Amino acid sequence: MLKKVLLCGLGGAVALTVGILLGHFGIKQGSTSPECVQDVDESVIAQFLAEVDNNQIQENLRQLTKVPHMATTAGDEETVKYMLKRWQDPDSGLDDAWREEYMVFLSFPDEKTPNRVSVVSPNGTAIFTVSEKEKPYTPDQEDPAVVQPYAAYSPAGNAKGKLVYANYGTMEDYTLLSKTVNLNNTIAIVKYGGAGRQAKAINGALFGVIGVLVYTEPKDINDNKMSDSSQTYPHSWYLPPTGVERGSYSSDFGDLLTPYLAAKEDTYRIPESDIKGIPPIPTQPIGFLDAYSLICELDGSPAPETWQGAFNCTYNFGGPGFKATSSFASSDVQMDIYNKGELRNSSNVMGVIRGSVEPDRYIIYGNHRDSWVHGAIDPSSGTAVMLEITRVLGKMVKAGRWKPRRSIIFGSWGAEEFGLIGSTEYAEEYYSKLRARTVAYINVDISVFGNATLQAQASPAAQSLVLTAAKQVKIPNKDSSVYDNWIQYSNRTSPTHGIIPNVGFLTGAGSDYAAFMHFLGITSMDISHAYDRSKTNARTYPAYHTAYDTFDYASKYIDPGFTSHQTVARTAGNVLLRLSDSLLLPFNSTDYAESLEQYLNTALKNFGSTLAQKKISVEPLSNAVAKFRAATNRLNELILNSNFKKESPLKARSINDQLMLLERAFLDPQAFPDKYGYRFDTISLLLQ
Amino acid sequence: MLKKVLLCGLGGAVALTVGILLGHFGIKQGSTSPECVQDVDESVIAQFLAEVDNNQIQENLRQLTKVPHMATTAGDEETVKYMLKRWQDPDSGLDDAWREEYMVFLSFPDEKTPNRVSVVSPNGTAIFTVSEKEKPYTPDQEDPAVVQPYAAYSPAGNAKGKLVYANYGTMEDYTLLSKTVNLNNTIAIVKYGGAGRQAKAINGALFGVIGVLVYTEPKDINDNKMSDSSQTYPHSWYLPPTGVERGSYSSDFGDLLTPYLAAKEDTYRIPESDIKGIPPIPTQPIGFLDAYSLICELDGSPAPETWQGAFNCTYNFGGPGFKATSSFASSDVQMDIYNKGELRNSSNVMGVIRGSVEPDRYIIYGNHRDSWVHGAIDPSSGTAVMLEITRVLGKMVKAGRWKPRRSIIFGSWGAEEFGLIGSTEYAEEYYSKLRARTVAYINVDISVFGNATLQAQASPAAQSLVLTAAKQVKIPNKDSSVYDNWIQYSNRTSPTHGIIPNVGFLTGAGSDYAAFMHFLGITSMDISHAYDRSKTNARTYPAYHTAYDTFDYASKYIDPGFTSHQTVARTAGNVLLRLSDSLLLPFNSTDYAESLEQYLNTALKNFGSTLAQKKISVEPLSNAVAKFRAATNRLNELILNSNFKKESPLKARSINDQLMLLERAFLDPQAFPDKYGYRFDTISLLLQ
Repeated sequence: MLKKVLLCGLGGAVALTVGILLGHFGIKQGSTSPECVQDVDESVIAQFLAEVDNNQIQENLRQLTKVPHMATTAGDEETVKYMLKRWQDPDSGLDDAWREEYMVFLSFPDEKTPNRVSVVSPNGTAIFTVSEKEKPYTPDQEDPAVVQPYAAYSPAGNAKGKLVYANYGTMEDYTLLSKTVNLNNTIAIVKYGGAGRQAKAINGALFGVIGVLVYTEPKDINDNKMSDSSQTYPHSWYLPPTGVERGSYSSDFGDLLTPYLAAKEDTYRIPESDIKGIPPIPTQPIGFLDAYSLICELDGSPAPETWQGAFNCTYNFGGPGFKATSSFASSDVQMDIYNKGELRNSSNVMGVIRGSVEPDRYIIYGNHRDSWVHGAIDPSSGTAVMLEITRVLGKMVKAGRWKPRRSIIFGSWGAEEFGLIGSTEYAEEYYSKLRARTVAYINVDISVFGNATLQAQASPAAQSLVLTAAKQVKIPNKDSSVYDNWIQYSNRTSPTHGIIPNVGFLTGAGSDYAAFMHFLGITSMDISHAYDRSKTNARTYPAYHTAYDTFDYASKYIDPGFTSHQTVARTAGNVLLRLSDSLLLPFNSTDYAESLEQYLNTALKNFGSTLAQKKISVEPLSNAVAKFRAATNRLNELILNSNFKKESPLKARSINDQLMLLERAFLDPQAFPDKYGYRFDTISLLLQ
Repeated sequence: MLKKVLLCGLGGAVALTVGILLGHFGIKQGSTSPECVQDVDESVIAQFLAEVDNNQIQENLRQLTKVPHMATTAGDEETVKYMLKRWQDPDSGLDDAWREEYMVFLSFPDEKTPNRVSVVSPNGTAIFTVSEKEKPYTPDQEDPAVVQPYAAYSPAGNAKGKLVYANYGTMEDYTLLSKTVNLNNTIAIVKYGGAGRQAKAINGALFGVIGVLVYTEPKDINDNKMSDSSQTYPHSWYLPPTGVERGSYSSDFGDLLTPYLAAKEDTYRIPESDIKGIPPIPTQPIGFLDAYSLICELDGSPAPETWQGAFNCTYNFGGPGFKATSSFASSDVQMDIYNKGELRNSSNVMGVIRGSVEPDRYIIYGNHRDSWVHGAIDPSSGTAVMLEITRVLGKMVKAGRWKPRRSIIFGSWGAEEFGLIGSTEYAEEYYSKLRARTVAYINVDISVFGNATLQAQASPAAQSLVLTAAKQVKIPNKDSSVYDNWIQYSNRTSPTHGIIPNVGFLTGAGSDYAAFMHFLGITSMDISHAYDRSKTNARTYPAYHTAYDTFDYASKYIDPGFTSHQTVARTAGNVLLRLSDSLLLPFNSTDYAESLEQYLNTALKNFGSTLAQKKISVEPLSNAVAKFRAATNRLNELILNSNFKKESPLKARSINDQLMLLERAFLDPQAFPDKYGYRFDTISLLLQ
C-alpha cells in the first residue's frame, strides 16, 4: 500500500514533514492533490451562472454592431481591435490573446461599377432596373460601408436572355421546367431555399441557363407579409420588400485556393480557374419587391401548385419571357455583374486560459466575427455571448479564484461568411496538434434566432453534457429550467433515456464547427436559442444576411431584454466549464451507440428490401454497430469500477484519451475523395 | 506542499497507517510510487542481456525451419502453432497470445501444371527447357513442399518470341536496347537488381515486350563464383547454379484487393482487373545456369560494358533471338505460365505483455513468419531472435520479477513475402487505435545477413536510442561493444555528435516496418547484423528466397555459433526495454532536426540553382526547418528543467505524448495520392 503514495503536482519543490503528513492523512484518508484530481466545482459553476449579465451582453452587441464589419474591411479591423482589447484587459481578460492572419481568396462587388439587373426592351432601352441598395428605415442602412447585395464567388459577366421561373433551382425543378420551356440562353429567377446557393446556378447552367437571379420568397420567410407600411421591419421582425440575402455561393469550406493547406503567404495556391463548386454563370440575389415585378409578368404555363408563392398573381414558367400584355412584353432581362476575386488578409483573434493540470488538452469555443452588414444577429449575437463568458471567466482567473484543469482556447474566426474560412484555415494550420489534443469544440454563432427555446446540434457523445447543463440553467424570472422548456418545444424518445429534448445531429457545414467536426473529428456542439416553429414558417430569422440585421432589429424583435442571450451564455458556459474542469470527460459513449443503432434502423427501413433484392448483406454493418455497443458497455463498466480520485491520474487520463478520441475513430481520410472536408467524416457524410 | 501528496497506482484499496508513512518517508524523502514513476531499471536490462542465449536461438531456428512455410500452407500453420505454444507457455510465455486472420489475395503456381520456359525450334520442338526445380544438395531441397520458383502476381499466359537481353530492365535499359533492336513481341531476359521486380515487366511491356525472364547474375550475388563442385553452396554461402530467387512482383504493400481496408471476410474487394502495379505480361525467374545457356547464345550487337556479367561470353543484345551458329538458331523462347490468384486465410500471431503503469501505450516488436521455402535467414533468423527475447522477458513476467511500464505487443506477421500483407492489414484494421497509442515499432526481419557488424535503419528520433543500446551490448567473447565494432564498419559525422555509427533512414518498404512508419507515422526501427561489404559485392546474402536458405546454410555459413543472432537479440531487446520502461520516452527530437537540416542542405546542393533559375524560393522550406529546430530546442529545455520523479505523472505523460506524436506530425493524408501507403509520409517520400 505504502508504495502507492506519490508526489504530485506540476513543479514546486517538495518539503514533507511527518507532522504535516500526520495532520493531512489524519483529516482525510486517501486525500489527494488538487492539481492532480481537480474536478468540476459546482460552486464555480453556480458563481458563473450568477454573474452572466444580460445588460453586459446588450452592451457587447452595441459595440460590435456600430458599423458594418464584412470580412477584411475597416469595420472588421475595428472588431479585431475590440476583441483584443477585451481579451487583453488586465481585470477581465484571458491569460493571453493575439491575432493570426491568413491570406484568403474573397469575392466582392466592384464599388465603382455596381452590379446591375434590368429589363431591356427590344430596342435596347432599360425599362426597369432592380434596386441597387436596400431601402433605409434607420441610419444603419445608410452607412456607406453597407455592401451592395451580391452573390460572393459568382463570376463577373454580362448575360441577356428571356426570363423563366425555376422554383428553388434544384435539378428536379430545372428538369420539370425544361419539359415545357427551352432553357437555352435564358435567365432563371429562383427562390432561396431547397438547395445550396451555388447549386441554383450550377444546376441551371447544365440546362443552358446563362444567368440566375435569386430572391427571398415572402411565403418562405415572411409568413406572406409584404407591406413595409405596416407589416415588415421596422414594424416587426419581417423582411422589408427591398431586403436582400447576401451569401457565399461556394460548395466547399475553407479558402478556395489552398484546399487542405493553411492559407499563409507562402502557401501554394491553385489557379483560380481550378476552383470547383462555384457558379459558372452570373448570379445575383434580389429582393422580393423586384422579384414581384418580374415574376408576375411572366408568360407561359402556370407553374405547379408547390411552386406558387405569396405574390397576388399566378407564378408562370415564363414563355420564356414576359406576357404579351405586359409592359415588359418581348423584353429580355440583362445582368451586368462586376464581382472580382481578391486575396485579402483575414484575421482570427485567439485567446487562451491555460490549463493548470492538463494544459495539453484543449477545449475550443468559437464564433466568427465577420458579418455581411452590421450582423447584429449573425454573428454578433454569438460574439456578444462569447465576450460575456470570457468576461466572467476572465475575472475569476485574474482574481486568482479559478483556473481550469484543461486549457480553454477562444477563437473569433474571420471570413466565415465566405465559407467558414478562418476556422478552416486554423484547423488546417494546426491539424496534427488539434487532432492530438482537442477534447471538444463549442460553436455559438447566431446565439438567438428567437425567444422560445434553447436548441442544440451535437455529436451524440456530447448530448448528455448539453442536457446536464440545460437542466442546471433556469429560465430568467421563472422557476423552470431551460431543459423543461426545451422538452416542450422539441423532443424525441430515446430507448435509453425516454423522452428527452431533441439534440440534432451535426451533419452539415452551416457554421464554423464544420472543420472541427468533419475534418479534425473533434466532438462538437452548436448551441443557440430558437423561435417557435409552430408560430411561423420562416426559413430563418427574416433579416438574415440583409442590411436590416442591426442592433435595433435584434433588441426590438429578436431578444428584447437580452434574456435569451443570457440563457445561451449560461448554458454554453456551463458546458464549457464541465469540459474544462471535469476529472473524467463528460462524454457518453453509449449515447453514440444508441445513435448508430438509430441510423442503422433508419437505413434498414429505407433501403433494407432494396439491398436484399440486390443480395447486398447488411450483416457486416449490423455486426459493427453491435461491436461498437459492446465496446461502449465495457468502457462504461471500467469507468463505474474506477475511483479516479484515489487511483493514479494516469488512469483518468487514459480513459479521457479514449473519450476524446472516440469521435476521431470515425474519420477516414480515404473516404469520399470527391467530398471536400467531409471526406474525413464517414458518419456525417453517410447521414446526409 | 502537503496537498501535493497523492495516492497513485491503478486499482487497489488504500490503507495507510501513520507508522508506515513515517517509515517510508523517513527512509527516502520525496519518494514515489513504483507504479507511477517506474523508470528503466538497469539491473533488469543487465539480467536480460545475460540471459539471452545463443543456443536457444539456434534451437528456435531449427524448429522454425523444419519444413517450408510459405504463407497459408500447412508448413505456415505449423509455425503458427509453434508461436502460439511458445507465447502461451506457462513458464516463459506472455500475458496473452492469439491469432488474427485476414482473407488475402495471394498468387501461386499451379502444382499440377508447373510453369515452363523452353527454347522452341521453328518446327515446334522444345530443344531446351529451364529447370523446374532447384538441384538438391541436402534433403531440404527435396521436400515436396518446396514451391517451384515463380514470380508471384505475374499473370498466367503463354508467350512466344525472340529473346533479347535487357540488363536490369529499367526504363533506361529498355530505351537503350530499343535503339538497336525492335522489341515488339520479344521475350526479355533481365537481371535481378536495379529496379523493383515488377518494374522489369511493367517497363518491358511499354516497349512491346511480351514476356520477361529474371535471373540472378553471379557478378551481382556470387562474386563471380559459379561452380557447384567447389565454389557454391554446400561449399560456401554462394548460390548454386540452379538457385532461383522467388519474390512478390507487386509495387504496393498490403492486400491488393482491399487497399486501405483490413482484408476481413466481409470487406469490399476491388475487382482483380483493377489491381495496379503488377506485371502485365508473363514473368518467370530462373537460375543462372539456365540464364547462361540462353544469354551466351544471343545474337546481335554486344551489350555495353556495364551490362556485362560473370559468364565467359559476351552478353549480346539479341538479334532479337539467337546466333545463326547456335543450336538455338531461329528458335523462339516459349513461356507457359500457370500462376493463379487465390483468396487465402493468412494468420498473424499476436502476443502481449500488459503495461503496469501505462497499459494504453504500445511498443510493438514484429517480424514476419512466412518464408518462400524454409526461410532460415528470411525470416526465421528474426523469428528465432524474437522468440528468445520473449522467452527471457516471459520468464521474468511469469516469475513476477518484472512488468513493463507500457504494453509490449509482439507481432508474428503472415504473408509478408507477398507484399507485407499481415502487418499492413493489422495497421489498417487498428488504424485509429495504433495511431493514438503506439510509441514505437521495432522490426527485426532477417536478423543476420552476416557476421561482421550490427546495422540499423531508424527514424531520426530513435537514432540515439539504438546507439545507447549498442554501447551497452558487448561483442561475445570480446571486450569491445557492438557500438565500437559498428563505428569501424559504417560511420558518419554528425554536426551534433561527431563521428557516430551510421544509422540509415527508413525510407523504403523492404519489410514490415513500412505500414507502421509510412502509413501510421510511428517511430520505427529495423535492426540486423551485416556482412562486411568491403569483402563481397553480393547484393544480399546469396541464398535469399531460394531453396538453399536452410538451417544447414544459416548455421554453417551465415552465423556459426549463433553469436550474431545473440548480438541482435541483446541490442533489439535492450531497445525494447528502454522503450517500454523509460519514464521519459528515449526519443531525441533534436536528432530529427539535424536530419531535416541534412535533407535541406542536400536538396539545396542538388536543386538550389535550378530552383533559383525558375524563381522558386526555398525560403519557406528553410524557415520551416528552422522553426522545427527551435521547437525541439524548447522541448529539450522543458525536459531538462523537469524533475519527472517529483512532478505529476501527467507532466511526463504530456511530454511523452509530444515525443510519441512527433513522427505522426509528418503525415499528410492528402500528399501524393498516386503513392499507395506512402501518401501519408511526406518526409519519406520526399527523400526517395
